Amino acid sequence: MTWALWGDWGTTRLRLFRVAEGNIVDRADGPGIGQLSVSPQHALSSLLEQWESHGHPERIVLSGMAGSRTGLCEAPYLPCPVTLAEWTAATAVTDLWGIPVHIGAGVRLESQDVMRGEEAQIFGALALNPHLARGGQCFVLPGTHSKWVQVSNGTIRSLRTYPTGELFGLLRQHSTLFQTASEGRSDAAAENEGWEEGLDVAKRADQFLGSLFRARTAQLLERRSPDWAAGFLSGLLIGNEVGEAHRSGSAAADTYVIGETKLAARYRAALAAFGQTVASLDSEACTLAGLEVLDVACR
Amino acid sequence: MTWALWGDWGTTRLRLFRVAEGNIVDRADGPGIGQLSVSPQHALSSLLEQWESHGHPERIVLSGMAGSRTGLCEAPYLPCPVTLAEWTAATAVTDLWGIPVHIGAGVRLESQDVMRGEEAQIFGALALNPHLARGGQCFVLPGTHSKWVQVSNGTIRSLRTYPTGELFGLLRQHSTLFQTASEGRSDAAAENEGWEEGLDVAKRADQFLGSLFRARTAQLLERRSPDWAAGFLSGLLIGNEVGEAHRSGSAAADTYVIGETKLAARYRAALAAFGQTVASLDSEACTLAGLEVLDVACR
Repeated sequence: MTWALWGDWGTTRLRLFRVAEGNIVDRADGPGIGQLSVSPQHALSSLLEQWESHGHPERIVLSGMAGSRTGLCEAPYLPCPVTLAEWTAATAVTDLWGIPVHIGAGVRLESQDVMRGEEAQIFGALALNPHLARGGQCFVLPGTHSKWVQVSNGTIRSLRTYPTGELFGLLRQHSTLFQTASEGRSDAAAENEGWEEGLDVAKRADQFLGSLFRARTAQLLERRSPDWAAGFLSGLLIGNEVGEAHRSGSAAADTYVIGETKLAARYRAALAAFGQTVASLDSEACTLAGLEVLDVACR
Repeated sequence: MTWALWGDWGTTRLRLFRVAEGNIVDRADGPGIGQLSVSPQHALSSLLEQWESHGHPERIVLSGMAGSRTGLCEAPYLPCPVTLAEWTAATAVTDLWGIPVHIGAGVRLESQDVMRGEEAQIFGALALNPHLARGGQCFVLPGTHSKWVQVSNGTIRSLRTYPTGELFGLLRQHSTLFQTASEGRSDAAAENEGWEEGLDVAKRADQFLGSLFRARTAQLLERRSPDWAAGFLSGLLIGNEVGEAHRSGSAAADTYVIGETKLAARYRAALAAFGQTVASLDSEACTLAGLEVLDVACR
């Protein structure tokens, strides 16, 4: 039976899906483009071996950093505005052992900002929700590099990146704001209490840099735990991201959060703190729908 | 001839001064409290050996992280407001090989913020500039953890920490905002051009998190150098610190920058961008004057 391989290949993770007759019949995870010690070709070949008994896939369809300079084959960044037809027409094509590989293009806003992978999720979200094809929306895709993307009438109009997740990781792992590593099991209650305080600080004023040090003094002077401080930082960072987006008018339109469950809930809570009720869309469903759109277009 | 040893022992650096008859006759640098692989006692003893031929110092006078939990001997954090007399009276005393060691106290603002070392520079600045004993000033001490300190009638009233220098270091060394390490000699012109743009972005709007990614896209899409991007980040960070302080009214009083020459010039330029002309005070002169104040009080 013929099959296709779909993949969402980001900086930190590769998610592969084996697709037969329109169904996901198997899946596997692998290293992100930013974590490879071998070539992307070699990494993908190794992962394909697990499905040897099914023969070669008929084609491989990838989104994300697979199309970056350090990826499998460079795909262009399309300048905004970008329609679905323009996006699918700009797919880069290469091959692996003679198997055609189709890689979705990225999107850029002038020379200001870029994304690779999130556009596939957004076109997927639009495919899953045809009523969104008219009117305007703001899609929020939280993560290492959070993206806020403006869409109207099915066309991607602009985007803005907030490297909030990366900043959180740097501060949590490498900064002097934490005097000790978190020990043993984490304290979810303390973390949540810290989150609430961090979000509250973010809500009241534009004092981001001047509030970071509170993560340290709370441990030093109030015997707060590193978990509390991590929650505080998360609330301060996400709250500031949402506050900046809110004040710049990014979140004015109909807003949808596309992200992993816990993180999406935090973004919804932060948006609610700025007076905005928003809905979540399932992240993996959007990814798969976006890869299907690409697959259909390149058949 | 009898002599005293003065030292400013911070997180990242120790600066020692050999003082005889009121003059600095020698100096040496050593590792910061945060960088020790041996005990602070051992580190200080090793450094003292270079002056063996002069005999033991009569006393050792230290400011900064020497008084932290991980330092030589814990000195208290005095709660604001703090007068000079209260500060010198709270000095912690220990000994090293029988030599008395006096360590200046730190200062805290309620349970919100703390400093260790900057208070010595501020009391030193006041000692060097007796006309400042009346009226109010804001002292800005840029660095890894920048401090903005409010003083009136010679009393330290409050402080706020901005971990701007630390954040710059984390982003420069560990983040994905830089794709390559800077190669060979640095390009000061590009760095300065980046600084101007970063400061300009910081001046226009409160979009700190949403502007960070520009450091990356400028390299990716406009072939800007890592030096340009480092300058941009520096301008964005320092501009945002100054902007936050300015908007919160911290810089409203008579303002003085106490810092290393190049960094102090950048803070003056950033303050000027927010409409404020300020003066610089020599950082080392303030440190030495503060240590002298401590030394006189503990004799």
